[in-house]
Amino acid sequence: MTSSEPPVLPTLLMFRVRELRFHAALRERYHVLDFFTSGEPLHGFLAAAAADPDPPRALVAAGGDSVSVDAAFLDAVPSLRFVFSTGAGLDHIDLGECARRGVAVANSGTVYSTDVADHAVGMLVDVLRRVSAAERFVRRGLWPLQGDYPLGTKLGGKRVGIIGLGNIGSLMSKRLEAFGCVIHYNSRKPKESVSYRYFATVHDLASESDVLVVACALSKETRHVVNRDVLDALGKDGIVINIGRGPIIDEAELVSALAEGRIAGAGLDVFEKEPKVPAELFSMDNVVLTHHCAAFTKESRSDLRDATIGNLEAFFSGKPLLTPVLPR
Amino acid sequence: MTSSEPPVLPTLLMFRVRELRFHAALRERYHVLDFFTSGEPLHGFLAAAAADPDPPRALVAAGGDSVSVDAAFLDAVPSLRFVFSTGAGLDHIDLGECARRGVAVANSGTVYSTDVADHAVGMLVDVLRRVSAAERFVRRGLWPLQGDYPLGTKLGGKRVGIIGLGNIGSLMSKRLEAFGCVIHYNSRKPKESVSYRYFATVHDLASESDVLVVACALSKETRHVVNRDVLDALGKDGIVINIGRGPIIDEAELVSALAEGRIAGAGLDVFEKEPKVPAELFSMDNVVLTHHCAAFTKESRSDLRDATIGNLEAFFSGKPLLTPVLPR
Repeated sequence: MTSSEPPVLPTLLMFRVRELRFHAALRERYHVLDFFTSGEPLHGFLAAAAADPDPPRALVAAGGDSVSVDAAFLDAVPSLRFVFSTGAGLDHIDLGECARRGVAVANSGTVYSTDVADHAVGMLVDVLRRVSAAERFVRRGLWPLQGDYPLGTKLGGKRVGIIGLGNIGSLMSKRLEAFGCVIHYNSRKPKESVSYRYFATVHDLASESDVLVVACALSKETRHVVNRDVLDALGKDGIVINIGRGPIIDEAELVSALAEGRIAGAGLDVFEKEPKVPAELFSMDNVVLTHHCAAFTKESRSDLRDATIGNLEAFFSGKPLLTPVLPR
Repeated sequence: MTSSEPPVLPTLLMFRVRELRFHAALRERYHVLDFFTSGEPLHGFLAAAAADPDPPRALVAAGGDSVSVDAAFLDAVPSLRFVFSTGAGLDHIDLGECARRGVAVANSGTVYSTDVADHAVGMLVDVLRRVSAAERFVRRGLWPLQGDYPLGTKLGGKRVGIIGLGNIGSLMSKRLEAFGCVIHYNSRKPKESVSYRYFATVHDLASESDVLVVACALSKETRHVVNRDVLDALGKDGIVINIGRGPIIDEAELVSALAEGRIAGAGLDVFEKEPKVPAELFSMDNVVLTHHCAAFTKESRSDLRDATIGNLEAFFSGKPLLTPVLPR
């Protein structure tokens, strides 16, 4: 028996992939250059990667604040030809710069959509029916002491205005219809596939809705699209749900509207400066606050591993990407 | 103009109707003898009511532990011909004794059903997706400090076994189907109107379900029907939801099963000795505890006033009851 050389694995640049099984699955298949375990500053890390004998052609990056894949980043590692985002959002990737350089982009596709929709509906039931407020009441031992407790309100008949009727918004609408809610929506243009009432602006949507749900992507156009005017159009009995991105809502205005009773409540999974949550919210009983966890279940984590490896294998073998963003 | 006598209002016996608007609406229409404001012991109160010049023919009583309408009660006020229960449950009314004496019984009908179904589904999303656990995590300021957090599990594909596919169970199943859950059920006999898989015993239902929902009425047959064997059949990944009545579950066994990890979690709106909640549950992150509030929204409260007055008016004018229990 002659000893054989270990197989040469393609080089992969990696940012913020923390789950151990996911890490291991990638290391089995690739020569991984991992920024977060490298301990190096970004500039030095990228320069070293570019100087690798086999410089990385692919990048796996989490969404959010982990890294910005912009012109400077792409200049630093000119070998890159493929960016995979483990998030559904793409606000951390400059798609124009990628397109200009012929860098392909894929994301996690619809891996998270049902879980995010489920979590959003759960938060809405929670806010309207005061589930986690009741939870605090019971756990503090107040039930035997205080007979009266503020009533919640019914889901049936509520007009739910969804900003962004994409995959997640559509899955939410299906669930909410089963509760007897009436669906309204806003998007760039009306969708022919649905019979829900369309509103051309978020302001008009808010003024005809009892609940306003942020389910769109973050972009220049949607940043702070839920502002003071929109919150006042929603009105004092209105509820805001955000499972999109924090900066789509003007958070300071949201906090004021809640504190002044100009809206009735909120269910928030995302915030402007995560992991920072405005401290004023902690003392409010009419808000439900979760830590950007709407997408994360055991099942979606496993689906994400499959989607990531599937897209990487497609890229490295020259086959069509499974969930391409660019080129489509 | 001659002054007219005030109209003679029919006498009404009342137990535990606390909402002020509801109280006022009844007092406008009836000469109300209210036990809880009388300050008298039950025996004396009933004796005085029976001795009233116009002894009460109708009784309005809340469910739960407010009063037992049994043989002794009916003996004490032999004028009673109608009992209205503001709850949906009838475990506090001895229907056999009522039937034997020709006392008609009505309840709140389906006034609460959608709200209870909504709350139950909300609690299930909460337990599976750890919403109120995440809430505590965020409100305690732990998000910026602790990166990792236990993942929840997906609703889609979960087998939900419903004990009692009545109004509430059916409304739950409609909602849960929209989340992609698979519905199983147990009831006295299979229902021809549904295609869900039927199980003749609660034990068999539990062994083929990921989630066990108690949505049946409390009776001699259902008391402690969810016992240690059933919990062990559900198993270590199983979730229990109870929006029926506390004593349908053997609560001590439920607490042990949770403490020992023999089941995975629970969402409980009802308890064996309300308002007492077993203290062991307060330190558990995998349970959601609410204070028997699943039925209560502003809308259901208003619907209950209408249902109560509608049934009383029907009774006093000799018309058919709106939501009769006895005779049907």
